[in-house]
Amino acid sequence: MQENSHLPRSAEAQSGTRRPGGRTARTRTAVLDATLAELAEFGYGGASLDRIAQRSNVAVSTIYRRWGTLEALIREVADQLTTEFTMPDTGDLEQDLRYVAGAIVRLRDSPAHRGWLDCMVSTAVRDPAARRTLTVAIDDRAERASVAVLRAIDRSEVPADTDPIQVIRWLAAPLYQRIYITGEPVDLDLAGRCAAVAAHAARAGLLSGFSTGNG
Amino acid sequence: MQENSHLPRSAEAQSGTRRPGGRTARTRTAVLDATLAELAEFGYGGASLDRIAQRSNVAVSTIYRRWGTLEALIREVADQLTTEFTMPDTGDLEQDLRYVAGAIVRLRDSPAHRGWLDCMVSTAVRDPAARRTLTVAIDDRAERASVAVLRAIDRSEVPADTDPIQVIRWLAAPLYQRIYITGEPVDLDLAGRCAAVAAHAARAGLLSGFSTGNG
Repeated sequence: MQENSHLPRSAEAQSGTRRPGGRTARTRTAVLDATLAELAEFGYGGASLDRIAQRSNVAVSTIYRRWGTLEALIREVADQLTTEFTMPDTGDLEQDLRYVAGAIVRLRDSPAHRGWLDCMVSTAVRDPAARRTLTVAIDDRAERASVAVLRAIDRSEVPADTDPIQVIRWLAAPLYQRIYITGEPVDLDLAGRCAAVAAHAARAGLLSGFSTGNG
Repeated sequence: MQENSHLPRSAEAQSGTRRPGGRTARTRTAVLDATLAELAEFGYGGASLDRIAQRSNVAVSTIYRRWGTLEALIREVADQLTTEFTMPDTGDLEQDLRYVAGAIVRLRDSPAHRGWLDCMVSTAVRDPAARRTLTVAIDDRAERASVAVLRAIDRSEVPADTDPIQVIRWLAAPLYQRIYITGEPVDLDLAGRCAAVAAHAARAGLLSGFSTGNG
């Protein structure tokens, strides 16, 4: 199971610190992989813990004991989106943002993630629980990526009151629009455009001074 | 029915030219209103022509004769998004774009449109027919709005190779992101931000020279 895992190595390594290479880590990987596959096939509303147990060859009682609910399991899958994402430091805002936008394109190109992300977005419009899980995953990623903007503030490349999260959102928005609204493909060229526009807007002070929690 | 209609006056007027204030126009308005309500309640996959007939008090045979299929009916509802949208000419790109972004916020604030747009977006992820209808409606609106960019090119406010459709897309993307991905409210302040960033990027030449049909 491990050699075909869709989960990032960093996540396996993380579990591994608790019990290196042990059964716990293997079980976790198998169950989370099975959850991804289940969501992609049956959707958020149709996913079943029993089938996830079958897919992963892990006893359903083990899954209940460890995760409690299907929703907790789905949240842990969503957390992978964050742990697999690490920001480089190129010393230039546009270059850093190009990496962030590129990570969205790469995530989209991953068959394992594509299925469950589609499922989460289509469900989120009508289901508040799916919306919450999706929003937390996106916010966590944006939070990680926003360090690029904080560094640009430190370098005085952008105004001190630039809103780091808003820069990441403006960066990602044209990609999400194509992925989820128009259904068009996204590529690294487009990621570069996104980075150029967001960096330019931030430098010009257009993404500064948002009131908290709004916009 | 007409006084509570969710359809724009211009659309009624348009039908009216064929038979002013007549039965045809009233039937059309009633059926399209009923379709909006049906989509909002049952979704794209669950909508039924029979129930639309009941809701509108129009014989189902009349609906079949005039529209042929449920999909044609839904397409005509989507067309309303375009016909109700007319561009002012303020002589300034950012001001014109502010109007376009404001129209998206107003559309979102309209309870009648909100329901069916949610339904289209959530279905589009999995259903190619819903995706097509949604994409055509969005493209038509973008096409209409892009006249603001063509005028800015004429005034030499932006480079001659600025891509009008891409400017409108970049303008709209942060709004769609909040509406459909994060589920946050949108307001006219945010619309103003969107206009400022898109106008600025266009003036700086960052939305120029796209290869056709891509990005």
